[in-house]
Amino acid sequence: MITLHTWTTPNGFKASIALEELGLPYKVNPINIGADDQFKPEFLKISPNNKIPAIVDDETGISVFETGAILVYLAEKTGKLLPASGEARYKVLEWLNWQMGGLGPMFGQLGHFTVFAPEQVPYAQNRYKTEAIRLLKVLETQLSKHAYVAGEDYSIADIAIYPWINTLRTFYKQEALLEATPHINAWFAKVGARPAVQKGMTIGKEAR
Amino acid sequence: MITLHTWTTPNGFKASIALEELGLPYKVNPINIGADDQFKPEFLKISPNNKIPAIVDDETGISVFETGAILVYLAEKTGKLLPASGEARYKVLEWLNWQMGGLGPMFGQLGHFTVFAPEQVPYAQNRYKTEAIRLLKVLETQLSKHAYVAGEDYSIADIAIYPWINTLRTFYKQEALLEATPHINAWFAKVGARPAVQKGMTIGKEAR
Repeated sequence: MITLHTWTTPNGFKASIALEELGLPYKVNPINIGADDQFKPEFLKISPNNKIPAIVDDETGISVFETGAILVYLAEKTGKLLPASGEARYKVLEWLNWQMGGLGPMFGQLGHFTVFAPEQVPYAQNRYKTEAIRLLKVLETQLSKHAYVAGEDYSIADIAIYPWINTLRTFYKQEALLEATPHINAWFAKVGARPAVQKGMTIGKEAR
Repeated sequence: MITLHTWTTPNGFKASIALEELGLPYKVNPINIGADDQFKPEFLKISPNNKIPAIVDDETGISVFETGAILVYLAEKTGKLLPASGEARYKVLEWLNWQMGGLGPMFGQLGHFTVFAPEQVPYAQNRYKTEAIRLLKVLETQLSKHAYVAGEDYSIADIAIYPWINTLRTFYKQEALLEATPHINAWFAKVGARPAVQKGMTIGKEAR
C-alpha cells in the first residue's frame, strides 16, 4: 500500500492523478499546509524540503518527495506512462522536466504576485505574466504537432502539466492567457475527461 | 558522438560536467545567448523552449533538452551516476528534481532581481533571498548527514547543484549566504576538486 501525503494544490494533484491512472491502491494522509503541517518532524523525515506531496510505498520501503521523482517512481513501478527506453522515454522526461523547472515554478511566481502577495509589485507581475505567455506558446506549438505533450501517447508529462493549467485558469484567474491557445484547450478538455484525472483532482478535498 | 549545444551558464555546466565525468566523447556547439542564437530555427528544432543546453546523440539519433532529462539520459546511457533501481535511484531523482524545481529556478530569480533587473524591486529581492536561504538550509541539513547530496555516492544530483552554488557565490555575489553552511562548503570544495568538474566548468568559455 502507498501512503500519499498531500494537499489540494496542483503539485498534490499530480501525484493523486498518477495513482488513479495507474490503479495503485493508496491511502491519503492530508498535510494541511494552511496549518503548517508540512513543518512537523514526522513529515520532514520523508519530505525534508517541507513541501507536499510525498509518498511512502510500504511494499518497497521507499519514500519519495518532489513530484518529478514521484511520477517517475510510480511509472517505473508499474511500467506504464513512461516508456522504459528509447527516444519516447526521453521525450517524456524532457517535458516532465520542462514542467518541473519552468512551467511549475514560473506559474507559481505569477500566482504569488497576482493572488498572494500583500502588495502590488508591477515589475514582477509583468515579468511572470510575460514568462507564462512564453511558456504557453511553447506548449501550444508542441500540442499543435502532437496528441499529447510528449508525443502521441498520454504520459506522466501530461499528468504533470494538467493541474497547473487548471490552476492558471481558475485559482490564478488568468483564463485570458488561454484565449490564443486552441491546442492547449483541446488537450485540456481531453485530459480532463479521463475518469482518473477527474478522481485525482478531488483527492484531499474532503479533508479541507 | 554527442554534440553539446551550450553556453557558459550553470545549466550549461551541468551537461558538460556530466559528459566529462562519464568519459563520453562530445563536441561543443556554442549557442551565444547574448546574440540570441537560442532563437534560431535549427536550435529550436532540438530545444523548443529556447534554452541551453541541449544534446544530440548521433549513436541513437536522440536529442534531449532540459538538464534534468539530459543528466538522466547520459546516466542511463552509461549506467553510471544514477543507480538503475532501488531506493538509491529515487534518492538521486528526488534531489535532482529538487534542484530542477526549486534551487535552480529560485536562485535564478534571486540573480535576476539582484544582478539583471533594470530597477530595484525590494519585495522581490527579499522574497528570493529568503527562499535561497531556506533552500540552502535544506541542503546544509542533508549534507550534514551524507557525503553527497543523494547519499554516500556522488551522482547526477551533485552535478546538477554544484554549478548553481558556484554561480550564487560568484556571479550573484551572495557569498554571505554561505557563511552558515559549513557542510555545503566542504562538499563544494570536494566536488570542485574533481578533474571532470574542473574541466566541465570551462566548456564554452573559449567561444566567449
